[in-house]
Amino acid sequence: MTQTSLLFVTGNKNKFSEAQSILKHVGINIKQHSHRPTEIQSKSLHNIARHSCVQALQEVNQALFVEDAGMFIYHYNGFPGPYSSYVLHTISNPGILKLMEGVKDRTAVFRSVIAYGEPGQEITLFEGRTLGSISRRLRGTHWGFDPIFIPQEGDGSTYAEMPIEMKNRVSHRAKSMAKFANWMLERDGGST
Amino acid sequence: MTQTSLLFVTGNKNKFSEAQSILKHVGINIKQHSHRPTEIQSKSLHNIARHSCVQALQEVNQALFVEDAGMFIYHYNGFPGPYSSYVLHTISNPGILKLMEGVKDRTAVFRSVIAYGEPGQEITLFEGRTLGSISRRLRGTHWGFDPIFIPQEGDGSTYAEMPIEMKNRVSHRAKSMAKFANWMLERDGGST
Repeated sequence: MTQTSLLFVTGNKNKFSEAQSILKHVGINIKQHSHRPTEIQSKSLHNIARHSCVQALQEVNQALFVEDAGMFIYHYNGFPGPYSSYVLHTISNPGILKLMEGVKDRTAVFRSVIAYGEPGQEITLFEGRTLGSISRRLRGTHWGFDPIFIPQEGDGSTYAEMPIEMKNRVSHRAKSMAKFANWMLERDGGST
Repeated sequence: MTQTSLLFVTGNKNKFSEAQSILKHVGINIKQHSHRPTEIQSKSLHNIARHSCVQALQEVNQALFVEDAGMFIYHYNGFPGPYSSYVLHTISNPGILKLMEGVKDRTAVFRSVIAYGEPGQEITLFEGRTLGSISRRLRGTHWGFDPIFIPQEGDGSTYAEMPIEMKNRVSHRAKSMAKFANWMLERDGGST
């Protein structure tokens, strides 16, 4: 299997650690590049990831990928969506639980979009989605919205209650990374 | 008094109408240019406005200004702040009121930042701030957060309950526009 090493441009250690753990199983080694490019305001994770990837390429000028993720609550028209990080730093999980009081439809989808680019090439996007629901209280301690998101494919645990190996099988990020990895491996297989 | 006409780049009709009404008193005529430049994600209205102004200048190549505004709730670390528009389209005013249930400190500040630019010149920024508090229920009908924001300088009415002439005396936007107008008039006075 080809040993590939490429840059994951992210300022988020947890994100990097998840990606590293998922990708090493398929022989893809990644390095963290901590500089975070300026993100644009958009309702589309695709646009945000694409724009960040283009920005990062201009600075780093080598093969790299970025990832943008968000949790979209159906009842609230997709809130907090692309602004998940900002919402975590302001109203945070208690704020989300408060907003969900008395709301019957607790459905949410977690989405991850990876944008991969090489200098002078088109950007390629990979998306992973995991459907689930918002818990009624904080369960487990982990980063982000993990303590309040219950993926449908799991055993009723929140992301935060799952062993990381289980989260890395069902999560939105696991899915986008798997698509990305397959594409990389097929491409490298075809070109060698 | 110099008759000046310049472009206000905004997709928001209400914003344009307020700006027009405030600025016409000092002899500044503005035209709306509806194209909305891509906004960046930032906690700083200054950065967002500056970036939008630079983008708009690249496209339009004539004297213009943009404005970015946001309502910052103290208890929630400034939420929704620069993402006010997105929050209005998702959890909206009822969501904000829900978040404020049981919260003692209902203080919020409304901020408006104008970025003015001419081709080849430095961008100039003007800020207006109005301190106030979040009401306990929706009061009045108007756009944005107007039905839930009670400015301290008023008579206890929300922005939405005030006649527009009163809002245009106490509002964050009235203040940023006044600073902008004074600067324009002094500059033009000095150069003729």
